[in-house]
Amino acid sequence: METITFTPIGVIHSPFKDKEGMPIQSPGAQGIAGTVMLDQKYAEGLNDLEGFSHIILLYHFHRSEGYALTVKPFLDDAMRGVFATRAPKRPNPIGFSIVRLVKVEDRTLSIEGVDIIDGTPLLDIKPYVPEFDGPKAERTGWLSGKAEKANVVKADRRF
Amino acid sequence: METITFTPIGVIHSPFKDKEGMPIQSPGAQGIAGTVMLDQKYAEGLNDLEGFSHIILLYHFHRSEGYALTVKPFLDDAMRGVFATRAPKRPNPIGFSIVRLVKVEDRTLSIEGVDIIDGTPLLDIKPYVPEFDGPKAERTGWLSGKAEKANVVKADRRF
Repeated sequence: METITFTPIGVIHSPFKDKEGMPIQSPGAQGIAGTVMLDQKYAEGLNDLEGFSHIILLYHFHRSEGYALTVKPFLDDAMRGVFATRAPKRPNPIGFSIVRLVKVEDRTLSIEGVDIIDGTPLLDIKPYVPEFDGPKAERTGWLSGKAEKANVVKADRRF
Repeated sequence: METITFTPIGVIHSPFKDKEGMPIQSPGAQGIAGTVMLDQKYAEGLNDLEGFSHIILLYHFHRSEGYALTVKPFLDDAMRGVFATRAPKRPNPIGFSIVRLVKVEDRTLSIEGVDIIDGTPLLDIKPYVPEFDGPKAERTGWLSGKAEKANVVKADRRF
């Protein structure tokens, strides 16, 4: 299939310079502050964003190379299909986090709940809207009874 | 900044051949069935996915050209910053939908709640996990009191 080319619109900054020890999901990053530095040319696109308490960030897992179709995720001891995990080593390494938006100043966003490594290229920002994004899930597969551990488990360097 | 190149991993099929009249968000697409046809070479990556009742699809808004930094969204009469909207015409036109997963057969997913146009190039599949993806949002900005209208408002061709 035809390739698709994107250009980062900014950079995400966080206290995490190394994969090891990072939170593996945003609920495990409570109180962790970071910033989004949007390129100046896109600043006008941030109008009206400050009204939202949470935003969706899409970004490039730039520190992951290659991928495997089955992986052993941080929260399990079994091999799982990569599309049934949130592992960064994916065919298209696009990351997705919902973070708290604290403040918007010109082209800089102050955010909290940051499970993203410092220097990550930002692809998109969308408002988080529970009416659109929060369906009731009856089943969470292999993560059932394990997802809560994301509050305490930290990353190693496997991905 | 350096560009990033992705290759679609499959195609999303739906009843929608035209933008006009489409649901604008998945809650407005209740009962609308579609399929994801993954490329055969990625099929193993679907292992363990069927345990999840809902999945996240990331895809290319391939029918949108160009972008504007402020747009008039379907649910409002005012111009809003594009990053405070879910409009498809964005600097990086990446779509995001949470859909119900009905069945997985080899490389084909049967899905429901599909607000995506037929033939859309798929970029990624992730499991939807409420513990990771469902924070309590105190504020939804300009969409406050308007988001529910996404259940009935349909798209026109503006994007």
